Amino acid sequence: MTLPLQPPPAASATRTTVARVAGAATTHATDLLAVEAPLEISLLHGPAAQRQTRSLAVTMRTPGHDAELVAGFLLSEGIIQQPTDILHIEHRADPRRPEERGNVIRAELAPGVAVELDRLERHFYTTSSCGVCGKTSIAAVRATACPVPPALDSPRVSAALIHALPGRQRAAQAVFEQTGGLHATALFSAAGELLLLREDVGRHNAFDKVVGASLLSGQFPLGQHLVLLSGRASFELVQKAAMAGVAILAAVGAPSSLAVEAADEFGLTLLGFVRNERFNIYSHAQRITDV
Amino acid sequence: MTLPLQPPPAASATRTTVARVAGAATTHATDLLAVEAPLEISLLHGPAAQRQTRSLAVTMRTPGHDAELVAGFLLSEGIIQQPTDILHIEHRADPRRPEERGNVIRAELAPGVAVELDRLERHFYTTSSCGVCGKTSIAAVRATACPVPPALDSPRVSAALIHALPGRQRAAQAVFEQTGGLHATALFSAAGELLLLREDVGRHNAFDKVVGASLLSGQFPLGQHLVLLSGRASFELVQKAAMAGVAILAAVGAPSSLAVEAADEFGLTLLGFVRNERFNIYSHAQRITDV
Repeated sequence: MTLPLQPPPAASATRTTVARVAGAATTHATDLLAVEAPLEISLLHGPAAQRQTRSLAVTMRTPGHDAELVAGFLLSEGIIQQPTDILHIEHRADPRRPEERGNVIRAELAPGVAVELDRLERHFYTTSSCGVCGKTSIAAVRATACPVPPALDSPRVSAALIHALPGRQRAAQAVFEQTGGLHATALFSAAGELLLLREDVGRHNAFDKVVGASLLSGQFPLGQHLVLLSGRASFELVQKAAMAGVAILAAVGAPSSLAVEAADEFGLTLLGFVRNERFNIYSHAQRITDV
Repeated sequence: MTLPLQPPPAASATRTTVARVAGAATTHATDLLAVEAPLEISLLHGPAAQRQTRSLAVTMRTPGHDAELVAGFLLSEGIIQQPTDILHIEHRADPRRPEERGNVIRAELAPGVAVELDRLERHFYTTSSCGVCGKTSIAAVRATACPVPPALDSPRVSAALIHALPGRQRAAQAVFEQTGGLHATALFSAAGELLLLREDVGRHNAFDKVVGASLLSGQFPLGQHLVLLSGRASFELVQKAAMAGVAILAAVGAPSSLAVEAADEFGLTLLGFVRNERFNIYSHAQRITDV
């Protein structure tokens, strides 16, 4: 991987004035906030003679790395399968609506990519921190996942290597994160080297940015890598990991029941509570060499 | 409020076997996981002569208090405005699909409630930990919010009262939460009494359950109450609070930029980092008496 560990653009945090109360004392101070702003994603797709644009989704995200977010989102959602399915991703702005500047983006798909409009239209909307959004039948929640099976030569790593990951992530994150409001997803090599870190108010967005960055740089799928989440592991994050071919998914927080079931079913090694030289193995322990 | 502080049903946690790694030692143990399972919500609506059922959403949630979740969701999303808009909420199961048992629920709306199908159909899907899902234009993100303005007699409370809230929430939560995987939303009286606590893998669901419980028990809107979130405050949680008429929203974690903007615009007092006898006031400080 040659992706740089670049800091996010300045727009990912903003200053505000707060009254800071400590016990019975109040002071006034400036404080940094994680920026949350809507990103409207549209799709230009269809065969050469019938190109069409449609609005796909609005996601609340931290600005920065938007093209990566879109690429990762399209892959995680099963709309594209490979890097060459995307021709181009660019911000667009209607000059009559200046407030949308930077918050509207369009992905242009290759003419050969068939988008199942019916499937998209069957999905209305939902709300969930898990983010398995808009699947309007329970069967669809699982059906959308068409994960890449972990590579036969998927890595095996030591417990000592796992113990080292959170510190490496925190060291990198400390540079960026001053707001207390961002989730991080970190990509590591099988040797434990931190390759990429992305942060976002939405943990699913942080994951999609990592996947999208890998996709856009031609480093895909991620069968030889480890991913560490700064928070909890939900079903959807396991599903996203599986879609990207990740074989070892580690979380600083707890997994949910469905995350464990999905990891077991998809062949992923799922680790939780990875901190303070400890962790739990919830599925496919064979990839941890010394336990 | 007469709502009991009842513990969630047993189905909210499940046991699993894990390999527990500490340093170089491994033991095998059973561990509790927060249950995450899809809930398919459908709507029976329309004028008396033209009743129709439609699938509305699938949300990933922790089972338990499902009817409250649905009631709160319908209110937060602007589909209903008042308790009498709901005639009935019940689980339904297709006997041919036993796996859906307990995970399919239908809300029957009063014949007079007009559901804007067009608006629902314009929404496709999205993914976001924030959960402002399926709004396919940026304008729609704000337009859906038609919040109840905080009551003119909204409460004013002391900093000391705020300092006491997290401890009361934790004391109640400790009884329920053994998985490390649940978000909590707590409802307090203006005197600081804990009235209601709901937990869920999705923080938006925990919030919706509190709103729905209040709605179904006829204690609505929540203009005389305080709400405490166990985690961060996003735009959508501020929007949900505003829809429920909440005047003071406190979060143990950080707010996002758009949460602060929305709280300012909607007239809410937004508090963040409420812990260890400290907090920050981000908007409408006039409701905290002694700062």
